[in-house]
Amino acid sequence: MPRLWSQTIATHRDAVREAVLDATAALVAEHGLTGVTMSQIAKDVGIGRATLYKYFPDVEAILRAWHERQIDEHLTQLLQIRDQTESAARRLEAVLAAYAEATSHHGRHDGDLAGMLHSGEHVAAAHKRLREFVQELVVDAAAAGAVRQDVPADELTLYCLHALAAAMDLHDPAALGRLIQTILTGLRPSDLA
Amino acid sequence: MPRLWSQTIATHRDAVREAVLDATAALVAEHGLTGVTMSQIAKDVGIGRATLYKYFPDVEAILRAWHERQIDEHLTQLLQIRDQTESAARRLEAVLAAYAEATSHHGRHDGDLAGMLHSGEHVAAAHKRLREFVQELVVDAAAAGAVRQDVPADELTLYCLHALAAAMDLHDPAALGRLIQTILTGLRPSDLA
Repeated sequence: MPRLWSQTIATHRDAVREAVLDATAALVAEHGLTGVTMSQIAKDVGIGRATLYKYFPDVEAILRAWHERQIDEHLTQLLQIRDQTESAARRLEAVLAAYAEATSHHGRHDGDLAGMLHSGEHVAAAHKRLREFVQELVVDAAAAGAVRQDVPADELTLYCLHALAAAMDLHDPAALGRLIQTILTGLRPSDLA
Repeated sequence: MPRLWSQTIATHRDAVREAVLDATAALVAEHGLTGVTMSQIAKDVGIGRATLYKYFPDVEAILRAWHERQIDEHLTQLLQIRDQTESAARRLEAVLAAYAEATSHHGRHDGDLAGMLHSGEHVAAAHKRLREFVQELVVDAAAAGAVRQDVPADELTLYCLHALAAAMDLHDPAALGRLIQTILTGLRPSDLA
């Protein structure tokens, strides 16, 4: 097989895979996790069911791939926000705000399927990366004098990430803003707080 | 059946039930949720397996009853702490500290069984009661000027309870103390913070 042809096939496969995940994202947004079926995805992508099964063995595999892509997109977005923001204190605030926003949209998935998605290794690895990422921001902000130094950075990171989970129960942007301000108040050094 | 006799039976049944839950608590503490079996409980309580089955149909039912008792004991303990503490600000701090302590000991249960226990209605009801209980303390402390008033009490309560969940990952009492202080700093009015 000439190289170009195999590349064409690979590109095509990637495009179909992405289209499947896009259709899945739209179905989850409209009907929730349980509203996703093989037939509906095949229909929305415009391919036959038999073709879809060549890409994914079942709905669970599709949801898992969709969820992994979601997580990767969120982490990439947080990295971009960090790199676009100037001071250490503002970087921390901007990243926490973006994470709260994503958590709020994420909401609580329905039952068993959500448990299945969240029990994956990918989620555990992403959580570890997120924790390390936020901890770096906390360390930098502490070095810049914007975060308290009487509590170790790893404990402050746990505090931030757990407190941010409150965003799941908040859907009003103003409430999210108040949550971030409350969390940041907790982080501040006592002489600045 | 004379009244006294039926009372004696009821008291006996309660005593056996409590002994079963005590044995379960000891087994969970030593071997985790998955280390609890009908045979071992019967042996530890000193009753036959057939008798045990007259009280509980299976291990799942026993674990559920044990978990409900645990939750009720924790809530009762929090109420006692509230009633023994003088000022509104100290009451909030003492209750949050006790809750963090309980959460830290609780730790993360192992997998599926924990999911089963936590999905129960009893847990949802207890969580609602806890939220209402903490919110009252937040409202009182805000009225006393010890908690910020620029964020609604229900949002501050969500913040507290989520941030307190960080205690699950902390096992050192000093770290728990720092978590509570960080959370309380977040709650403080800006002119006092």
